[in-house]
Amino acid sequence: MTYTAPIAEQRFVLDTIADLPGLAALPGFGDATPDMVEAILSEAGKLTGNVFAPLNWSGDQAGSRLEGDQVFMPEGFKDAYARYVEGGWAGLGAPVAHGGQGLPFVLASAVQEQLTSANMAFSLCMMLSMGAIEALAAHASPELQERYLTKLISGEWTGTMNLTEPQAGSDVGALRSRAERQADGTYRIKGSKIFITWGEHDVAENIIHLVLARLPDAPPGTKGISLFICPKFLPDGARNDLRVTGVEHKLGIHASPTCSMSFGEHDKCVGYLVGEEGAGMRAMFTMMNHARINVGLQGVAIAERAYQGALAFAKERVQSAKFGGGRDPVRIIEHADVRRMLMTMKATTEAARALTYLTAAAVDRAHATGDKAAAGLADLLTPVTKAYATDIGVEMASIGVQVFGGMGFVEETGAAQHLRDSRIAPIYEGTNGIQALDLVGRKLGMDGGTHWRTLFLEIRDFIGDLPKAGDLGALRPYLEDGLAALENASVWMTGNSGDALTDTAAGATPYLRLFGVTVGGYLLAKQAAVAAQRLAAGEGDAAFLRAKIATARFFAEQLMPPATALLGPITRGSGLFYAIEEAALGA
Amino acid sequence: MTYTAPIAEQRFVLDTIADLPGLAALPGFGDATPDMVEAILSEAGKLTGNVFAPLNWSGDQAGSRLEGDQVFMPEGFKDAYARYVEGGWAGLGAPVAHGGQGLPFVLASAVQEQLTSANMAFSLCMMLSMGAIEALAAHASPELQERYLTKLISGEWTGTMNLTEPQAGSDVGALRSRAERQADGTYRIKGSKIFITWGEHDVAENIIHLVLARLPDAPPGTKGISLFICPKFLPDGARNDLRVTGVEHKLGIHASPTCSMSFGEHDKCVGYLVGEEGAGMRAMFTMMNHARINVGLQGVAIAERAYQGALAFAKERVQSAKFGGGRDPVRIIEHADVRRMLMTMKATTEAARALTYLTAAAVDRAHATGDKAAAGLADLLTPVTKAYATDIGVEMASIGVQVFGGMGFVEETGAAQHLRDSRIAPIYEGTNGIQALDLVGRKLGMDGGTHWRTLFLEIRDFIGDLPKAGDLGALRPYLEDGLAALENASVWMTGNSGDALTDTAAGATPYLRLFGVTVGGYLLAKQAAVAAQRLAAGEGDAAFLRAKIATARFFAEQLMPPATALLGPITRGSGLFYAIEEAALGA
Repeated sequence: MTYTAPIAEQRFVLDTIADLPGLAALPGFGDATPDMVEAILSEAGKLTGNVFAPLNWSGDQAGSRLEGDQVFMPEGFKDAYARYVEGGWAGLGAPVAHGGQGLPFVLASAVQEQLTSANMAFSLCMMLSMGAIEALAAHASPELQERYLTKLISGEWTGTMNLTEPQAGSDVGALRSRAERQADGTYRIKGSKIFITWGEHDVAENIIHLVLARLPDAPPGTKGISLFICPKFLPDGARNDLRVTGVEHKLGIHASPTCSMSFGEHDKCVGYLVGEEGAGMRAMFTMMNHARINVGLQGVAIAERAYQGALAFAKERVQSAKFGGGRDPVRIIEHADVRRMLMTMKATTEAARALTYLTAAAVDRAHATGDKAAAGLADLLTPVTKAYATDIGVEMASIGVQVFGGMGFVEETGAAQHLRDSRIAPIYEGTNGIQALDLVGRKLGMDGGTHWRTLFLEIRDFIGDLPKAGDLGALRPYLEDGLAALENASVWMTGNSGDALTDTAAGATPYLRLFGVTVGGYLLAKQAAVAAQRLAAGEGDAAFLRAKIATARFFAEQLMPPATALLGPITRGSGLFYAIEEAALGA
Repeated sequence: MTYTAPIAEQRFVLDTIADLPGLAALPGFGDATPDMVEAILSEAGKLTGNVFAPLNWSGDQAGSRLEGDQVFMPEGFKDAYARYVEGGWAGLGAPVAHGGQGLPFVLASAVQEQLTSANMAFSLCMMLSMGAIEALAAHASPELQERYLTKLISGEWTGTMNLTEPQAGSDVGALRSRAERQADGTYRIKGSKIFITWGEHDVAENIIHLVLARLPDAPPGTKGISLFICPKFLPDGARNDLRVTGVEHKLGIHASPTCSMSFGEHDKCVGYLVGEEGAGMRAMFTMMNHARINVGLQGVAIAERAYQGALAFAKERVQSAKFGGGRDPVRIIEHADVRRMLMTMKATTEAARALTYLTAAAVDRAHATGDKAAAGLADLLTPVTKAYATDIGVEMASIGVQVFGGMGFVEETGAAQHLRDSRIAPIYEGTNGIQALDLVGRKLGMDGGTHWRTLFLEIRDFIGDLPKAGDLGALRPYLEDGLAALENASVWMTGNSGDALTDTAAGATPYLRLFGVTVGGYLLAKQAAVAAQRLAAGEGDAAFLRAKIATARFFAEQLMPPATALLGPITRGSGLFYAIEEAALGA
């Protein structure tokens, strides 16, 4: 299966939802002109389609291979990475001061989406490096930036993020890795980490591990955690005292080495402090917030790839006559039920893409202008983006398998790989359950709840401006119902306190779903409204614009009502969740 | 991960939903006494838990292995199968006249559920043999029955079902395999088949292939298809001219050899006609209907297994403090969001189990008494059972992975295997899209639509008899809303004709979902009502009975509303499905 970057779609969303033209007018983003954006997406499309996509299946089958304390990547990976570095792609969104191109995060996200669609396992390498760049740019000393940031931005070196320990998964504050101060200002790091993505590999010269550890006199919990750089190779070229001790055997992303790492087995692992002692979690959150948006992007990317495969197959496969019509077998794309699957994939993927780009653009706006409303919107939407987009990533990949029928269950077809790969995204970077709790427990209440109210008012105004009839008018009742449910649920959620917080927690996951679907439906409707304007003005690609309107309508009519109906389940409380005593829960 | 057969649950559903006591009073089923049922489920529980479950993971990792034209099964499989044969399990539901025990299909299904939970890949061998037994018992001549049926029922030989060819997947009528009449009354079979489950293996002495093929003078389509027995070894002990030519590399059920088969490469493949020439599809439908119920059972079984694993993990894993309460980390089962996942798995699995047993019991009732209402109910519910139960099988297995967090993505944990295994069930034995079309296109209209009307009236009466308040009263609004939506949707579905049949096809899949959830909710409510009676009478296990009531309430309040909201999407028609021209569907 091949991959073709959906450039027209990406540009349309960047234009209408992310307001890239508006971003380009802000200080620092002047380079993001329409021509530049077109050139970047188009060049990225060649690289991802021609170089990375062909390695997706072979990489999955070969997997990464551990020998001794070295990990060997599948054939072709090293060369592909070299092409990525040569093209300067690693620094697209990175600070100009250290050799980056300083382009908006949302544009870098569009490129990262392509890379992830092409080869999700590979794209994790770049995603982790971006996170490391982010953390070092924000928190490291000028010396450390000079030494490490520059080579991460050029792509010569890659980065990792070392949080998880066996007893400290979601609960980062429970980690036990230790750091001891040394007379020379460095630290000695000791501890074991698990689930370290691209923790060891052979595509770059050096690997810059960002490691969370605890000083001997640090307080318990997250406040006692500091962040350190532990490079694989020290500045003098010597090997640091750290190594990979195992590679996980996983359901998917086989070409992404998920490593167990050991630091300081010989008490000689050198670490350099990033920022202040005890400020590790703050630095980690810097990179985690972006990483969460990037993981949401993975859901979009895998859904897009699954859709492209299913669509191509459905156009070719001839099987059975149409229901209620004729005797001749038709291409399965003509069957209504297959169309339902394809339209569900298309509409859902586009809704999630719009949500993700909106969130990324809010980050850009906040960074460029310090605008509190933009920062608040980014904070609010980050957990929704991460969880909704990754949930639908799995769901759409599963529908993709179904379109292929029996062939979908056969690995050679490739559809099954997308399902396997997609399944990690709802888990890592904070499980989707944790995202839902972050949304209801932290994000709704921020700044007195102004951010969700502002967003909902914007949606209400948009609905009010829609025509009463026609294609756009047909969207109204679904958007109104969805928004009303979301508003009611939000008021209920934020009204709980004390013991009733358990009720909030009980409703958090369906609440996030309602949030994602409603905002997604709104963003598709917004695109439909622009499409209608352009059609009326005789501008643009008419088939593409008409498709935008039909897609928004399909999403509203077919996919919004079950989400809107979650208002009841969200607000029923937690009583029934705990009604059954534990011993009676199972056989 | 271990497996414990949920015997109390199975007995309760057999009792309250399948009305096994009523079945035992029918001619031929007298052996199904309560003591016998308890003994069978309990012995089966030992066999499946101690012998088959431990081979699930090792079988998945080793897979079945093709060497030349032989398939070698993973270690332990041959011995386990011998234990199954020794115990007489293969003939549990088979005719007494040929050595079977003649017990109700629904009881055999409960045992098959256990086997499938324990080891889905292995259970397919038994399921296919049951199908062959069914077809031969109904259609084969006495001589063929004597020669083949007896050894299938003893389990010494196993059976297969050979429909699919590369160009004939869902469209069986498109198959091309040929059969030539011979002077001795036998036939020579020639053709290639794909996706033949357990088409070759080493756990039994002989394999009885049931093969669909076409005589030279046969009409096109399904009417020209005849059914043949092609045994691997002929009566004189010689090898028949048929062989495995490949084994698929699949997403899951790795220990189930999915074979490409070649018949008559040397023009010497002997086939024996089953039934009349041209009556092959009828015979195939006999086994397919049961097979569809058995595949639905796979959804129940894999969901049960996934639930047991997730529950055990959630009881042990300590991580993070409760939302809004305290600082001490708790076992994750105490987190509301994890409870939501576990309760969703429990309630959904029990709803699907009840639906499956109800359908199987209707088959028994129809067979035993010739009752047309029972036969009609079985026909109506078969596609719902197959599609709803297998859809939720995948969904629950995916939730199971989520409960495990990062560990769920690691293969060694076992949760990922359940997801991989579960994914085939919505595809084979007629994709779930085809089930939905069978429901709306054939089953709703049978006998003037009397069967769905009867079922819905029964549900309406049940709701009318519920108390107005209390736990049972709390179920009323959800059941009423669900039933009203289902009735409206059914009337709409059956009102379409001509071109509007495309609208029916467009709504078929969400309609089936609404059907499955609503009937599932009703069957849980029915169990809750019995539980309340028994509690009031001081009978039975109070914790189990209270759990039944809470489970029914959870399903009604949390899981029914989104399904009820499908009424709109079901009845919106197909316009938007075809609104986008094909070229504008993709990048």
